[in-house]
Amino acid sequence: MTIRLSSLLRDDQISTEEADLLCYGFDASQMKGKPLSVLWPESVDDIVRILRFSYEEDLPVIARGAGTATTGSSVPQEGALVISLERMKNIVEINPCDQYVVVEAGVINGQLQRELSARGFFYPPDPSSMNFCTIGGNIATNAGGPRAIKYGVTRRYVMEIEAVLPEGRLIRTGTKTIKSVVGYDLKDLLIGSEGTLAIIARATLAIRPEPETIITILASFSDLEASGNAVYRIISSGITPRCLEFMDRMAVEAVESYSPTGLGKAESLLIIELDGDVKSVQRDSERVVSIVHSLKGDVKVAEDSISREQIWKARRAIPPALFSIANTKINEDIAVPRSHLTEMLVFLRGLSESSGIPIVSFGHAGDGNIHVNIMVNREDEERYGRAKELVKRIFEETLRLGGTLSGEHGIGVTKSEFINMEIGHNEMDLMRGIKRLFDYKGLLNPGKIFP
Amino acid sequence: MTIRLSSLLRDDQISTEEADLLCYGFDASQMKGKPLSVLWPESVDDIVRILRFSYEEDLPVIARGAGTATTGSSVPQEGALVISLERMKNIVEINPCDQYVVVEAGVINGQLQRELSARGFFYPPDPSSMNFCTIGGNIATNAGGPRAIKYGVTRRYVMEIEAVLPEGRLIRTGTKTIKSVVGYDLKDLLIGSEGTLAIIARATLAIRPEPETIITILASFSDLEASGNAVYRIISSGITPRCLEFMDRMAVEAVESYSPTGLGKAESLLIIELDGDVKSVQRDSERVVSIVHSLKGDVKVAEDSISREQIWKARRAIPPALFSIANTKINEDIAVPRSHLTEMLVFLRGLSESSGIPIVSFGHAGDGNIHVNIMVNREDEERYGRAKELVKRIFEETLRLGGTLSGEHGIGVTKSEFINMEIGHNEMDLMRGIKRLFDYKGLLNPGKIFP
Repeated sequence: MTIRLSSLLRDDQISTEEADLLCYGFDASQMKGKPLSVLWPESVDDIVRILRFSYEEDLPVIARGAGTATTGSSVPQEGALVISLERMKNIVEINPCDQYVVVEAGVINGQLQRELSARGFFYPPDPSSMNFCTIGGNIATNAGGPRAIKYGVTRRYVMEIEAVLPEGRLIRTGTKTIKSVVGYDLKDLLIGSEGTLAIIARATLAIRPEPETIITILASFSDLEASGNAVYRIISSGITPRCLEFMDRMAVEAVESYSPTGLGKAESLLIIELDGDVKSVQRDSERVVSIVHSLKGDVKVAEDSISREQIWKARRAIPPALFSIANTKINEDIAVPRSHLTEMLVFLRGLSESSGIPIVSFGHAGDGNIHVNIMVNREDEERYGRAKELVKRIFEETLRLGGTLSGEHGIGVTKSEFINMEIGHNEMDLMRGIKRLFDYKGLLNPGKIFP
Repeated sequence: MTIRLSSLLRDDQISTEEADLLCYGFDASQMKGKPLSVLWPESVDDIVRILRFSYEEDLPVIARGAGTATTGSSVPQEGALVISLERMKNIVEINPCDQYVVVEAGVINGQLQRELSARGFFYPPDPSSMNFCTIGGNIATNAGGPRAIKYGVTRRYVMEIEAVLPEGRLIRTGTKTIKSVVGYDLKDLLIGSEGTLAIIARATLAIRPEPETIITILASFSDLEASGNAVYRIISSGITPRCLEFMDRMAVEAVESYSPTGLGKAESLLIIELDGDVKSVQRDSERVVSIVHSLKGDVKVAEDSISREQIWKARRAIPPALFSIANTKINEDIAVPRSHLTEMLVFLRGLSESSGIPIVSFGHAGDGNIHVNIMVNREDEERYGRAKELVKRIFEETLRLGGTLSGEHGIGVTKSEFINMEIGHNEMDLMRGIKRLFDYKGLLNPGKIFP
């Protein structure tokens, strides 16, 4: 097999070394698989040839960006070819006039942000893993991030996709114009499809001019309901913050014991970031402060980049800090309509108390997207089993409140057993039909999304 | 057949009267077809029963909103059942907290705007036909409008769709949350599918708080390039107007002779509308005026609703006014990346001069979407034939500039012979596969989109 692959790619584009098979066999979900081989295409043409080959040989393939997925969606099936896009990292075009960039799939989100920032622009989607994760992976999972509340998620910024289907069929979908209604929307079908329909090779992304100014406000509350109500009141007052992040007491305590950043003690914290022209930001910031005060919260306003960075450092410290509570986190990213946020947070606290298992909540409160972390030691099997059972109860409550199982992580492997709770029979039938249409032999990232 | 239909619907929900078959047999494209019957469902359940019946009887069906389509997409095939959604006009829920509305497909866009305005909200998509056209039709064509430059088109605001497939299969797709990544995006596949995949029965739409203030600026130029450059400079300066509309000399003249509104004489006009808080709008308005002056343009600023309305009256008068030039318009709505707008306008003027056939251009310059109207008397067959040939040349130039055949009208019948100029072979194959998957018997709006 390697010999036949050698006729398609150079030797340094193929590996079957144990170390590589191990490194490319897991993702941030801590799940593992052992691929047959790891391949590093360097062009769209390389991907076309690999997919033609894998089709002839009936070999499953999986596209891999940086492996930051938390759902197992970038873990290879046993015996699959891993197609690592990491060498396809060219920023092909930056067009400030029409406000778009053309990038290869392996471009790292943070790298793109730096290139754009030097020209006075930014790319709004900012997943927390932005310093590692790739644009191809962002598109495959329709990634969000703190700025989604104001700017929307990846879907809003993808203008064109160039992708390769099984048998090496190349497709281009979307346009470089702001509007287009020409045939069915294949582009949005690929976004969020987790590598199961096509391998994304290149994309055109919309970019935005950087705002004139940014102010970050840290608000701390001595009760959970007050913070939920603050979120609701800020939005209802017509202010659209750039970010509106939430941390509960356990998240605050974990961060403070992991790497003290002066967050202090609080039942819950909000990080509210505003951007725009100086005058409107100043005015909105005063309104936010007065809302927080009216709910008996404390406020710290950061107007310079150093104090802003200190606040965000605390926010980014949450995921590693959580492991001081237990060695395993069962990590869900449910979303509910904003008006049900307080209700959901109170439910989660109650569930944590009644089960005796720590549930830490933080995330993008502004768009109702909560990262729910059930903390448990893996080796305690009885407790781990009970923790797993909480997942279903959380999903039930989420759906009862009009919410969704995943706001930005996708389904992957970890949530596929629950997808039928949200997606009905007729809709699943259509999804399976679409899967067959794009990938008749079922070679693209098998075992993901579908139960 | 009517007898069997009578067991499904009340008598006043069914008509085979000549007058009805005539009235429901054409749309704004001036094309005609003669349906078998016109049906008026009053609930989702009625639609389910009609589609079950039409599937059993192999009868083609076409959903109809207000028939404002300009491409023939709402003209029935001979012998089809027309499903008029006009009685399904309930606004089911207005939720200011979570900023959404739930509406039935037959709700008129303008009616929704009035209901929302009374509560301090608006629904951004504003097609020129907003006082007649329905939300279902807006979704089926992914309708745009002047505000798209700032707020985006229909796609951005559709959160959930409830739709009926052949055999009466009901699907619900999307969520009431701002983010969701759960399986394939069926919702965006339905948006813009022109009634060929499913019949849209209900939708949840995102709404926005009304801006604090609006200012409208009328800028007139004595040369075409200057107005194109003004569009480009306004956007590049970081200002995002709420609307940025364009009218060429012939459009201005036609409006002035049809219903004088004091536009005066100009080679081209721009309508630039700004919204937001008072201070930023004032500041941006001064910047726009100075850009226009630097390009030797004249400016009129309208700050109150009466003078604003006068400007928009002139804009809305263009379509009827054009018939003073000739009795038939061949109406295209191409879009190009903004930086190519001037080039496209100059090309269109040249084509009009070299062919001797009037081509009037106006539209949404801010997003590169131009309404191109080739004016000709239908009975002059030789001239009409030459006018038709210009369409292909306009599409070729559009695509050469990285543009698209349709910005907001869709393909329907009139553009289906050209769709292959933009959509490649592999992509068309996927679209045909999707059509078969949703509508195996090909009963939904046959003869549209596909050549």
